[in-house]
Amino acid sequence: MSSTPSYDELATTWTRMHHFSHLQSIAGWDQAANMPPRGNEARAAAMAEMAALLHRMSTAPELPMQLGRAAQEPLSDLQRANLREMRRQWQAANALPASLVERQQLAGARCEHAWRTQRPANDWAGFLENFRPLLALAREEAALLAAQTGLSRYDALMDRFEPGMTSAQLDRLFGEVRRWLPGLIGRVIERQASRPLIEPVGPFPQPQQRALCEQVMRLLGFDFEAGRLDVSTHPFCGGVPEDVRMTTRFREDDFLGSLMGTVHETGHGRYEQNLPRDVLGQPVAHARSMALHESQSLSFEMQLGSHPGFVARLAPLLTQAFGAQAAFEPGNLQRLLTRVKPGCIRVDADEVTYPAHVILRYEIERPLIEGEIEPEDIPALWDAKMMELLGIDTRGNFKDGPLQDVHWPSGLFGYFPCYSLGAMYAAQWFAAMRRAMPDLDARITAGDLAAVFDWLREHIWLQASRWTTDELARRASGEVLNPAHFKAHLEARYLG
Amino acid sequence: MSSTPSYDELATTWTRMHHFSHLQSIAGWDQAANMPPRGNEARAAAMAEMAALLHRMSTAPELPMQLGRAAQEPLSDLQRANLREMRRQWQAANALPASLVERQQLAGARCEHAWRTQRPANDWAGFLENFRPLLALAREEAALLAAQTGLSRYDALMDRFEPGMTSAQLDRLFGEVRRWLPGLIGRVIERQASRPLIEPVGPFPQPQQRALCEQVMRLLGFDFEAGRLDVSTHPFCGGVPEDVRMTTRFREDDFLGSLMGTVHETGHGRYEQNLPRDVLGQPVAHARSMALHESQSLSFEMQLGSHPGFVARLAPLLTQAFGAQAAFEPGNLQRLLTRVKPGCIRVDADEVTYPAHVILRYEIERPLIEGEIEPEDIPALWDAKMMELLGIDTRGNFKDGPLQDVHWPSGLFGYFPCYSLGAMYAAQWFAAMRRAMPDLDARITAGDLAAVFDWLREHIWLQASRWTTDELARRASGEVLNPAHFKAHLEARYLG
Repeated sequence: MSSTPSYDELATTWTRMHHFSHLQSIAGWDQAANMPPRGNEARAAAMAEMAALLHRMSTAPELPMQLGRAAQEPLSDLQRANLREMRRQWQAANALPASLVERQQLAGARCEHAWRTQRPANDWAGFLENFRPLLALAREEAALLAAQTGLSRYDALMDRFEPGMTSAQLDRLFGEVRRWLPGLIGRVIERQASRPLIEPVGPFPQPQQRALCEQVMRLLGFDFEAGRLDVSTHPFCGGVPEDVRMTTRFREDDFLGSLMGTVHETGHGRYEQNLPRDVLGQPVAHARSMALHESQSLSFEMQLGSHPGFVARLAPLLTQAFGAQAAFEPGNLQRLLTRVKPGCIRVDADEVTYPAHVILRYEIERPLIEGEIEPEDIPALWDAKMMELLGIDTRGNFKDGPLQDVHWPSGLFGYFPCYSLGAMYAAQWFAAMRRAMPDLDARITAGDLAAVFDWLREHIWLQASRWTTDELARRASGEVLNPAHFKAHLEARYLG
Repeated sequence: MSSTPSYDELATTWTRMHHFSHLQSIAGWDQAANMPPRGNEARAAAMAEMAALLHRMSTAPELPMQLGRAAQEPLSDLQRANLREMRRQWQAANALPASLVERQQLAGARCEHAWRTQRPANDWAGFLENFRPLLALAREEAALLAAQTGLSRYDALMDRFEPGMTSAQLDRLFGEVRRWLPGLIGRVIERQASRPLIEPVGPFPQPQQRALCEQVMRLLGFDFEAGRLDVSTHPFCGGVPEDVRMTTRFREDDFLGSLMGTVHETGHGRYEQNLPRDVLGQPVAHARSMALHESQSLSFEMQLGSHPGFVARLAPLLTQAFGAQAAFEPGNLQRLLTRVKPGCIRVDADEVTYPAHVILRYEIERPLIEGEIEPEDIPALWDAKMMELLGIDTRGNFKDGPLQDVHWPSGLFGYFPCYSLGAMYAAQWFAAMRRAMPDLDARITAGDLAAVFDWLREHIWLQASRWTTDELARRASGEVLNPAHFKAHLEARYLG
């Protein structure tokens, strides 16, 4: 008989949930990529039934006892890490009363639904009516989670996405970035003002764009035997680790958005495709966190995808796909990909101004959740911070201001920081790679990307959730997250 | 409180199974239409987990009690019909011990796997080694089902696909067809021998074929807001009633196979799309039977799809898709679609010789299951019947003989008759339509297909499983299945 009976039972339960989640993921991908409109009601009902089943399984009354017993069993280090992640998932699933979850879903659905028309109408007052009760429920959730975890309320929300990250750390990290970012943006803009830039001339037919995207995905090591690229309104990386379903969208007047979006999602995709196979289905095999996931997509899109050596490889592929254009000359292409321009919209931001958007959101949503400010205070704070960080006047422009993102209207708080943490981690990984391989840039320029992928596979992908994020960062790069690498990266690329 | 508490509980259970089956169906469609090869292992595990869950739900110990109690409750006629179908499904799910099902799955997988190489190698002796134990298990299953249902062993197997159909009826139906079919085939061949026939000249590019198929599906009323057409190796009609997923495959040297296959699947698809919405998810809303389903695909492919009036509508679409060709002249196109040629292969057979293939299989698999003959006896019987029914010498040609279909190698017995029963029902439906609408053929020729669809919707699609098959046939056409209509159809079309 097994000497770890309770652990084994838990592992079996998680394998079953992995199988059920597989069907849920594929159905979710299909919903976005294939499903005809009249199929939606039945799909929603089917997926709700599955969500309820998964919830019942992760709140089963025998789990706490099994988790307790398993902790006393003679587990290997890997099993112990798995048990730690099981307990995390169990806590997350059991933290909130069903009635609160239900009220949140209703309030979130109502607020988001109305927001879809309020945003184009610039209707901040209308938005506030639905947002106030939604925020009240998020505060209720935060208070409950805080009581259970001992974290502050905002940290308790953030911990669901970024385990271990605290606002104390964020204040330090973002505070540091805040000090040098506006100055750096100014210097970059000044430097770029006079450089020549040739815009690509469309149209760029969709079949050629798709072929180009698939070609670049292959170059980046995406395994098409274990994944696909399809089209959806909002690009994402879905599916399951064994069968990754990436999506993109095509605009005939612009190919760069789709191409670089695909490079971004390929980073997510390769992380998933290279999670450790031998424990797949167990929590320890899950991607570590949202910031770590974003560190992979940004390693691909920013660190590698806008690297001059990689861009030089990309240029002939563009000519091959769309015919020769002056805009495809490698130097010009590199300038197109590294153009810095402060703007209102986060998702359109370049890698230099992007952190300003995230810092602004963090500096508003943290006090909002902690009860230090109220929804009425948002516009004035928004305007002041946009001016301070990016020099942009946003007064009265709610639709390109606090109404621009779906996060708040859907009740999602504590997620925004992950985007910029991901960018910082990506810079830190490449700094570590350069220490280990001083010829890294020459290798990339020579088209030898294996060096990058092997490092990421060994230090990030195959580690999955084996370690805490800090421990993973220390093992990978010798230190916990250090924004100095991000600063050095931006200075080298944009002022070097 | 409800006055039908047990019925309501049952209905809730079936709704939940409907939701779970939805995910299973979409995953199955995706497996055939999208899934990359390395995704298969995880997909198989996920679908097996779901199959096990659905099996647990349909064998839950409380069901017999609930079924018994519900029968005492004050149910409407529709609810009573639903309860009858619930009981049927419950019996099917509970009829066999799990160990037998498992042994059958293993033996079937082994036999089918080996058959994939034995068929091209014409290896009958090798096939028999795996087929004997598989047949033994099918006989064991048949004996168990026979004991439970009071049916003969073969009838008990057939009842799973075609409730209410018996070999006594089949002997009568097929016996009658057998008497006139060989003579009719001879007369048709003689008559067609001298008629001119122009073959279409390819290649027919895939994008144009796909556009043509979708255009014809629209003409046939397929709702693309609630379904799709995709590509798979083996065409099928899958998905769920709310979101029908049809597949086809394209060959650049031949468009008629894909086009008429799509017309066929569209018949299945419209049946599913038009099942009664108000009870969807309940057994009473399921398609009535396999023969009824096939009666819809053959109503579309044969009755309507090869109707001269419809063919005349099709002709200009072909010119539009592929450019003008002499072969697309309506008369020639009609001759192409109604060409009769006895051959070895069932799936390639025309509508006149097709029943000969099915009768032959029925006349072999019935005594095989009843223990009247043994696998060794098949080749001699096959050769004799092929000569008798179609005048073809098949001696020594196992691969185009008893090894040609996947049914027997996978352990599927009792299914073949449904194909020809479907063709007979389709002829009977159109005969009934012509009685109700004497100008039906003129309407079809004028492009007014609504008359056909409205009749099928009212008499077949919306009736779903409300009635037994015989009762449905009586309500729709005034009589139970009568092969005279099929004979009259063939004579009118091929000798008229």
